[in-house]
Amino acid sequence: MPLSGTSPATRRSTCRLRTNPPRARPRPPPITVAECENPSSRGVSRRRLLGGGAAALGATGLGWGIHAVAERVDPTAAIDGGLTEPFFGTHQAGIATPVQAHAQFVGLDLRPGARAATLIGILKVWTDDAARLANGAPALADTEPELAAAPARLTVTIGLGSGAFAAADVVGDQPPWLRPLPAFPIDKLDDGWGQTDLLLQVCADDQMAVAHAVRVLLKNVRSLVTVRWSQHGFRHARRSHPEGTTMRNLMGQVDGTVNPDPATDFDELVWDDGAGVPWLAGGTSLVLRRIRMELDTWEEIDRSGRELIVGRTLDTGAPLTGSSENDAPDFAATDRYGIPVIPPSSHIARAQPFGDRERFHRRAYNYDDAPGPGQTSNSGLIFAAYQRDVDAQFRPVQQRLAEFDALNQWTTPIGSAVYAIPPGVTSVEDYLGSSLLDGRT
Amino acid sequence: MPLSGTSPATRRSTCRLRTNPPRARPRPPPITVAECENPSSRGVSRRRLLGGGAAALGATGLGWGIHAVAERVDPTAAIDGGLTEPFFGTHQAGIATPVQAHAQFVGLDLRPGARAATLIGILKVWTDDAARLANGAPALADTEPELAAAPARLTVTIGLGSGAFAAADVVGDQPPWLRPLPAFPIDKLDDGWGQTDLLLQVCADDQMAVAHAVRVLLKNVRSLVTVRWSQHGFRHARRSHPEGTTMRNLMGQVDGTVNPDPATDFDELVWDDGAGVPWLAGGTSLVLRRIRMELDTWEEIDRSGRELIVGRTLDTGAPLTGSSENDAPDFAATDRYGIPVIPPSSHIARAQPFGDRERFHRRAYNYDDAPGPGQTSNSGLIFAAYQRDVDAQFRPVQQRLAEFDALNQWTTPIGSAVYAIPPGVTSVEDYLGSSLLDGRT
Ligand code: HEM
Ligand code: HEM
Repeated sequence: MPLSGTSPATRRSTCRLRTNPPRARPRPPPITVAECENPSSRGVSRRRLLGGGAAALGATGLGWGIHAVAERVDPTAAIDGGLTEPFFGTHQAGIATPVQAHAQFVGLDLRPGARAATLIGILKVWTDDAARLANGAPALADTEPELAAAPARLTVTIGLGSGAFAAADVVGDQPPWLRPLPAFPIDKLDDGWGQTDLLLQVCADDQMAVAHAVRVLLKNVRSLVTVRWSQHGFRHARRSHPEGTTMRNLMGQVDGTVNPDPATDFDELVWDDGAGVPWLAGGTSLVLRRIRMELDTWEEIDRSGRELIVGRTLDTGAPLTGSSENDAPDFAATDRYGIPVIPPSSHIARAQPFGDRERFHRRAYNYDDAPGPGQTSNSGLIFAAYQRDVDAQFRPVQQRLAEFDALNQWTTPIGSAVYAIPPGVTSVEDYLGSSLLDGRT
Repeated sequence: MPLSGTSPATRRSTCRLRTNPPRARPRPPPITVAECENPSSRGVSRRRLLGGGAAALGATGLGWGIHAVAERVDPTAAIDGGLTEPFFGTHQAGIATPVQAHAQFVGLDLRPGARAATLIGILKVWTDDAARLANGAPALADTEPELAAAPARLTVTIGLGSGAFAAADVVGDQPPWLRPLPAFPIDKLDDGWGQTDLLLQVCADDQMAVAHAVRVLLKNVRSLVTVRWSQHGFRHARRSHPEGTTMRNLMGQVDGTVNPDPATDFDELVWDDGAGVPWLAGGTSLVLRRIRMELDTWEEIDRSGRELIVGRTLDTGAPLTGSSENDAPDFAATDRYGIPVIPPSSHIARAQPFGDRERFHRRAYNYDDAPGPGQTSNSGLIFAAYQRDVDAQFRPVQQRLAEFDALNQWTTPIGSAVYAIPPGVTSVEDYLGSSLLDGRT
């Protein structure tokens, strides 16, 4: 019997929406998808097209429509694998999006010989994949369409390193801040976590959705790129805490309290207006730093010492001058001996903006990888900061922290990269990066 | 100003339950814990005691009581970080427990020179830690007590490899099946994922709870053990699907359908009755295999081919002879040409029990690590099977699959270990492993 052909399984595989008949056991049925979404029955393999060179991609076009996803949200049961975040918009998703529980940051390099057409091909595929997956639909040529059915607020965010501009021969359009951060004395950078040509940031409340999306996004372009690193990050699970609770990092600190408000601050602080670099209007920048936590020595410090190092309490995250998390720190307050209540050397005293421009959006994740030989933990922060202008907003703060920050003794930057984040797309005819690359082939 | 002493932070740190005052911004407060749980104010460091030799542990005793956890579950908001699974019971938790979304399996070796007293010391510390953490309370000497406050159904399960029996000089009490599985031709075992003296299995619906618990469990015994491997596993997020939905693995298959029922089958199939090895009554065994999925070649097979390889459909997980997941497969059914509908070479045809004893409880997790050089994915299954008797129940099935299973071409065992799982503890005076080790020092 041949593997395909006349088997009962094959005979049943006509293109229809499967529904589950009532079943004997009480176990609820797994989520199903329309079998007609299964692309293995299609004649065209997009992977083969890509393998044959990105120029062939023009032919695949983007003239697909997104099928409405079946209603998967049952509010009474609080089943929320089916929740979606909009993909289309003037800005890319995954930045102002309420932060999801899991993230995968993947750094990729273009293979030698890549040109503008290659990059356009990759970005078209990624745009198509991301739009479908964010909507709970399988990607084209998705061999595991069922894994796409519960996107759990999936977002895909794409970034360009300066290598991508060089390959596409558009270096003149590079934003001036798109270059490595200066070397800081605190850094112990490992190039294995360093700058890459491209970045994929995939976030969702379910690691299954993240894993599936990353696989789809990578395999569809694997002949064109190599993966340099892949960093899994996490925060508290969705619904483990009341919505909007600030995350804790693995030092136990409430982390992310002081942050611009997407509703009121992002137009000024995060989204580029295109004044300097026209194609970037609606886009932004990402500084991604992998920062190891030296937990063994950190935990030798007593609790009040650890609070003084940051300038906030460990229990509620309130500033040492306040009583609840969102109280504004009073850096001028002194105790009865005239000593500042929040030490000037503390992390928040050093990190606070000196002037209005030094603000950016932090959207960090915890990492906790397998410990190396002799280690107890291999943990830290995947520190992700978004801002219009790295040089004006992020750099002065990082510079100041590198010069002095009481926390530095227990945190070590081991990876660093800077990306331009192109604007979003508002139509299925468009692709991420088009404002930079259209007509460049 | 000294780091501790007269600072406002310290002055506020009296032993009371903190409650959050009403706050200006709508963001809900982070979960708080009683500061009196913070052990940094205690005079005794358990870590130091351990560092000074496990014999000192007798002095620390287990005479603690577990404080009732504050009610953290808000059913209307479906906030379930505060949900707990019972730690105390005749069996260890984490086996019959409804499976959680995240797991960390940690393989540890005793340092040279370890003896029965060392092992007892470790197991007492782990018992104490696990009981507190499962209940949402910080461990003793927990430097991040806030991270303990949302256990999210945390369970800690402890296993003993034969090295632990040797170190404690109790080899005569080793169950006969506690030895490496025979070498199978399909295996490409890497000792980096191999047998260890001890196993920690930590599961919860929140990876933060898992990461915190693993750190606590490891650091409290770090002078006595070394970590050989640490494997992070995941399934669909809690509440992403209706409760009880069978997981999918990264091949997209519904995985875990046919499994013994904890309510009716575990006494016969999983829990040892002590007839052969008296101390093991209420315990069981774990076979842990790390199995890589060869997704690149797997995804070249068309959909009906992939269904024939397993014997079940990809959309609902129904057997090829049925229409819904829990239909019993009919291995005798043939199509109109007389060809079996479920191929005899398929995974389920080969894995089904040949005789009543060949059944065990599978509780697998997906893994998806960073791809190595040239790889697109580094994914697979952390296959975990629990049974009374490895030789009678698991081995014949694994043997049969190793001889032939259509799936073998796309799955590669790269890690393998077998552990004895001691019974649970029912009192705070007891410790995991006491039935084996008490009086052996
Ligand atoms: C592992 C490394 C780090 C840890 C554990 C950490 C932790 C924290 C914590 C606990 C807070 C207080 C709560 C909050 O507002 O979020 C904070 C604030 C802050 N951090 Fe960090 N941080 C780290 C690295 C960095 C880096 C690399 C930067 C930027 C270069 C940075 C910039 C800031 C800023 C701007 C604030 C808000 C300050 C204010 O205006 O109050 N942090 N951080
Ligand atoms: C990566 C490797 C593996 C994959 C992807 C896999 C996948 C599956 C799938 C999809 C099913 C059908 C649904 C179900 O009942 O769960 C299944 C069934 C089963 N598998 Fe596996 N499996 C793997 C390895 C193993 C191994 C190593 C064993 C044991 C040695 C095993 C034993 C079983 C058993 C006993 C069943 C139920 C058979 C029945 O009675 O219907 N599997 N597996």
